[in-house]
Parts: sequence; C-alpha cells; structure tokens
Amino acid sequence: MGEVIGTYYYRPKAGVDFKWAAQAIAEEQTTGTWTDISTTQEYVRYLDGRVHEVVPYNDGYITKVGFADDIFEPGSIPQYLSVVSGNLYGLSKLAKVRLLDLDFTEATTAPFKGPQFGIEGIRKIVGTDKSRRPHVGTIIKPKVGLNPKDTAQVSYEAAIGGVDLIKDDETLTDQKFCPMADRLPAVMEQLDRVKDDTGRTVLYAINVSAPGDKILERAEEAIDLGANMLMVDFVVCGIDAVRVLAEDSSIQLPLHVHRTMHAAMTREPEHGVAMRAFCRLIRMAGGDQLHTGTISGKMDHDTAELLGDNKALTDPNYFGLKDVFPVASGGLAPGGVAREIEVLGKDIILQAGGGIHGHPNGTRAGATAMRQAVDAAMQGTTLEEYAKDHAELAAALEKWGTFA
Amino acid sequence: MGEVIGTYYYRPKAGVDFKWAAQAIAEEQTTGTWTDISTTQEYVRYLDGRVHEVVPYNDGYITKVGFADDIFEPGSIPQYLSVVSGNLYGLSKLAKVRLLDLDFTEATTAPFKGPQFGIEGIRKIVGTDKSRRPHVGTIIKPKVGLNPKDTAQVSYEAAIGGVDLIKDDETLTDQKFCPMADRLPAVMEQLDRVKDDTGRTVLYAINVSAPGDKILERAEEAIDLGANMLMVDFVVCGIDAVRVLAEDSSIQLPLHVHRTMHAAMTREPEHGVAMRAFCRLIRMAGGDQLHTGTISGKMDHDTAELLGDNKALTDPNYFGLKDVFPVASGGLAPGGVAREIEVLGKDIILQAGGGIHGHPNGTRAGATAMRQAVDAAMQGTTLEEYAKDHAELAAALEKWGTFA
Repeated sequence: MGEVIGTYYYRPKAGVDFKWAAQAIAEEQTTGTWTDISTTQEYVRYLDGRVHEVVPYNDGYITKVGFADDIFEPGSIPQYLSVVSGNLYGLSKLAKVRLLDLDFTEATTAPFKGPQFGIEGIRKIVGTDKSRRPHVGTIIKPKVGLNPKDTAQVSYEAAIGGVDLIKDDETLTDQKFCPMADRLPAVMEQLDRVKDDTGRTVLYAINVSAPGDKILERAEEAIDLGANMLMVDFVVCGIDAVRVLAEDSSIQLPLHVHRTMHAAMTREPEHGVAMRAFCRLIRMAGGDQLHTGTISGKMDHDTAELLGDNKALTDPNYFGLKDVFPVASGGLAPGGVAREIEVLGKDIILQAGGGIHGHPNGTRAGATAMRQAVDAAMQGTTLEEYAKDHAELAAALEKWGTFA
Repeated sequence: MGEVIGTYYYRPKAGVDFKWAAQAIAEEQTTGTWTDISTTQEYVRYLDGRVHEVVPYNDGYITKVGFADDIFEPGSIPQYLSVVSGNLYGLSKLAKVRLLDLDFTEATTAPFKGPQFGIEGIRKIVGTDKSRRPHVGTIIKPKVGLNPKDTAQVSYEAAIGGVDLIKDDETLTDQKFCPMADRLPAVMEQLDRVKDDTGRTVLYAINVSAPGDKILERAEEAIDLGANMLMVDFVVCGIDAVRVLAEDSSIQLPLHVHRTMHAAMTREPEHGVAMRAFCRLIRMAGGDQLHTGTISGKMDHDTAELLGDNKALTDPNYFGLKDVFPVASGGLAPGGVAREIEVLGKDIILQAGGGIHGHPNGTRAGATAMRQAVDAAMQGTTLEEYAKDHAELAAALEKWGTFA
C-alpha cells in the first residue's frame, strides 16, 4: 500500500525528546494509540503514522511521516487535511510545528481531475501560446465601492491598455453597491469592445466566492451572465470549493484561485502550513491559476519557498494533472517586472493593482507600462533602455523606480 | 449605518510608523484607495475602513478598525472573513498581525439563525437540564482503524460507564475500514441498549465532514441511518459548512463542531487569528457545541483567552442567538476534572479519550471515573476525598494524578 508523506518542521519544548515529538505528530494524526489504551486492537496498526526520518534543521527538526493510503477517504480534501494537518499544531509539548510539504500517492490523487485548462489552455484562450510571454493582470481599484458602470469603465481602460486578465477583489462578491448581475455584463460588454477593436481576449475573473450551498448557483448565474472565467477564495470558502467548481460538468471556464487569509497560516516560518501544501491540493482540486507571491511586492515572501511553490504548480509530471498558472500579485509595479520574470520565469501572471491604476497618466497608461515592461524582458532589454522610447513605462519607472 | 469592529494586534517592522500601519490594515481590507490612484471616486469613501483606536500593547499595538455594514454581503461567512481577515496577514511592513476579536452588528448577524439547540436544548436531550452538571464526552480510541463492530463495542462500554457524548475522531469519516453505513447503526444499536437499561440518552456525534458538494447528502444519509447528532470539522470543511448543516430544514439534530487544524492559525500569540473570532462566527453559523480547549490537557492554551472564548459562546445576549456548549478536549483525565470545572464552570463538556480508554480497568471504568470526578465537583468534595469510596476514580487518580 502507498503512503502519503507529510514533511514537518518542529521544535520541541525544552526537555522534550525530539524522537518522542516526531512520534507524537505521527500518532496524533492517525491512530493515537498509546500502548496502554485498553481498546487498542492489533489489526489497526497498519494505519499508524510512521516516522521515516528525523533530521536537525535550524533550531528544530524536520521529520517525514508516512500515512497509509487507507487512512484517507478517497477524494475528500477536508478529510485529507484532517489527517495531515489536524491537531498537531496545538500539541503543547511542541513549541513550533509546520507542515512543509505533502507527497501524495497514485491512490490518493486518482479521484481528482485537476485543472480543466492549465497554463496551455489559458494561453490558447488569451493568444499567447506562441509568444509564451508572461500575462499581465490587474484588479479593479478601488478594490470595493465602485458601481457597475465605473467598474466596467476601469476594466475597459485596463483591457485596452493591454492587460490579459482582470480580477475582482477578494472581498467583492455580490454586494448592493455592485451586484454581480449588473457588474458582470457591464464589464463583459467592455471586454467585448476591446476584443472587437484589438482581437485580444481579456479574461475577467468574476468572484463567485459565496456561502457553501450557494457557490454552484452563483457560478451558474455568472455563466448565464456571460462570464469567461471564475474566481474563488480558497481559504475562506474551504479548499474543496475549488474542486466543486472545477469538477461541475456545467462549468467549463478557467478558475482563478485567490488565497486571501492564507498568511494567517503560512507566514510564520516555524509554524502553521507552508503554501506548498496548499499548492499540491489546489492542483488536485483543479484551480487553473493560483496566487503564490512576488519578489518585489508589498507582501512578505521567501524566494526559495516561492520558487518551490511555483514548481509544485507547474511540474510537468504530477499524476497526469494539468499545471496551474502561478499569479504574482500584491504591490507589483512595472519597475519590478524584469526582476520578477528573471526569477520566476515566463509562465507567470504578473498582476498589478496600484501599480497600474496609480500610473500618473491613469489606468490605460499603467496597463500599457506593465506590458511594455514585459516586452522589454522578452526582448532581453533593460527596463531603462526600453523606457527611452516608451513613454508609459518611463513615467512608471519615474514614479515607482526599478526593483533591482 | 452600523460598523463591524475588528480588533487587531500588530507589530510594525522597524522604521514603520505605527499609525500608518493601522491605516494600512484598514485600507488593505477595504477600498485600498491610496490617494494617488486615478480611479478613486469620492462616492466609495463611505466603505473605507476606519481606524478608531490605536493603543500600545506588549511589543506592538492593538487597533480597532471599523468596517461599514454595506461592505459585507449579508449572510456570506466566506465574504465576511475576506473583509476582516484577508490579506492583512501578509503585509511585509508588519512583523506580526493577529485578529483578536470581531464585534458584529445587527445587520450583519440578522441573516443567521444560530444554534438550533444551544446548551439548554442539549441538556434537555441528555436529561441534565435539572442537575446542570457538566457533560462527559469521549472519542473512540484508537482514533481510526477499528471496524464497526469494535467501534460499537467501545461505544457501549463508554456509554454504559456514564458518558453523555461519544464523538468520532476528526479524521474518521467514511473510510473502507469503517464505513459510516455500518458504523453508525452499530453504534446506535449499542446506545439504544444503554437507553433501555439506564434511561439515559447518549449522543453520538457522527462525523459528516465531507467534500463540499457531498456534505448535505452525507448528513441526510446519517439521519436515515439513525443519527442523533452530527459532527463537522469547521476549518478543513470551511466555516460555512456549519451553517449549511445547521440551517438545512431537513436536519434537526444538534451539531458538534470540531476545530482540527485551527492551531495553525490560532496558536502564535502575535500572529494569525484568535479563536475568539471563530467562536463568534460558529455561533452565528449555528454550531451547538464547539471545542475551545482545556486547562489541564495536552493542547497548548491561554486561560484568559479560553475563558473569553467560552464567554463568547455562552453570553446570554448575542443578537438573540442561542448559546453554544463549549467542549474541553485534548489530553483530559479524571484528575483534571475538578480544576476544569472550577475555572470553566459547569456549562462545559469535559471530553476525555486516553483519559477514559487508558483507565487500568478499561473503558467502562474510565467513563465511570470521569463521571465520579464530575459528581465530586458537583458535591463540593475533593477528588481525593471522593476517591476513597469510588474505586474507578481512585484508580484513575493513581495512574494519572490530580491536576492542581
């Protein structure tokens, strides 16, 4: 039988044996069978968590724990999480504990279909399957509050300026000030104009994050209203919401997955859950795009972790599942683009909000500046050099500088 | 218009102005409107987050931020969370940031029905509405792996020994080694025997945590199989799964809410989300019982926080919503019972796993010992005194000692 491997960092409290602590992690998440429990039956032992390895790391240890395939309910992401990421974080004999990564097995991934589109599918829709350039995305700003008409207007400016993707803010769903039923057709009308004028398809990730029993209904409503992409917030909705949307047979749109709230779990370097584990699950669940972070933005990051996260999304060999387009977002501006591409590669969506709408000449110029920065990188030219005869980029670099 | 108040602890990085940092939290979660963004419209300003207060606290600050009612999509817990608990945790200018509490408004709570039963409703089912004693619960051990027949046998022993509640492990759902369709009727048959013999109703919280689109189906299956209580893991399923189960008109069973994985977010004292915020949301969502922690067990805790969490669940005045029965669980044994009751009060479910099944004379004696410890506390007698003529308690104290 196969074994899912959970990799954990942990730091025992003073006086706690490090081997005992690894064993406690393995037991807490599985049978919890201390030898002196009267109800223990020998036949359950094959489900015991197995400590395969413990190595010192920084101030603590890294351990690999094996979980028998049979302990998992096939296809249930909530239950998978309970096994590999359950009570262990609260164990008082551990000062810190962090789930670093998950290696699934053939049996535990078999129930999942993965992304419907993947990077290649999205590139084909947008028309970058030949150029292979990074995509440029934006969020509407202000993040919430604009009425549908103004939202559509900002969307037009961003799209005609050159973005490939517009996403809703994670907090924008279906509020009175901007109901989906008005916002979505208004935006799509503008994107149709752009398509007519330029031939380019711009995706609009309409946020269908909704109460658990309404999310499919919301998605279907969005489809009826002409959506060309859906967006969902995986932490607040529960990861399985991604799978529910991706696997529903009536939904054949790419799925943009946002991770708002993730840093409550992922940010502390010694505690919680590394984004890597979520990357594995989102790929299984079927997200086509997932936010993983930037090098140059306003959100905290660790470059090595980020590279590993993106690799987890894009590794060509992952149980036959399509890849996931990584999204770099949060405080990005044109001056950071060259560096982002240098580090993160070209299979990346570079998303800028303030870095587009805050352009001295407005949204359209901001979107153009982002695309110019991408073009510079694709041509192997520095941003400064390219800015010499690209005014929008020049103005952006003057305002925000270049991220070295 | 009302304002939801989020209370946050934060610690800015060196060189970052603390007032700027509070403002950044307020903006990141709302309009995100830096003054120099071209697309800002004055009419959106009423949705700006408002910093009401900043006070120094430990190495950082506590701030209260107001969010206009209108920014929330009524009744959408995922969306509420995105507003009050979204991207802020990742802001690189903050070293630490933690959501401490949420004060909702009439308008934001109005869509919710809250618990169907509450403490009083559950006491009536169990028959403790007159005695007002704490309830005793257990989990089956080994946590996973027993077949349905052995699970039922352990359940019988625990129930006849005196527990009021038996819960599934959070990782036990519907695996091959113990399918719900076999486990649930087998356990209920034993609990019916106990009812026939003793007149006591023992609740069995069958774990219906399941994929997002299967959870109602799973719950209905459980009802058809004779369930008298349902259980759901709120972090891994998404909080809204609680509401979906509580509000479904065909489900009229009390709901036991487990929090496995919570400590990935709640444990770091300066970062993440305090359990308090989840307590507010689970009460709105309609959980009848919720795990909040112990004084004497194996899981890390902060006593003041725990008391506040339980108060949030049981405060009689909370928008007309019934209260939630707090569950103290994780490494509890009879020797800790007096102290738990002294600190946490009598409206508490004292749950012991190893502390029952690890009893030298087995599960039945372990359950009896727990109940004896409760009886001692109700009579104002010390555990040691009571143990003099209660052999099961005496054996438990001898094995595990008394938590002072």
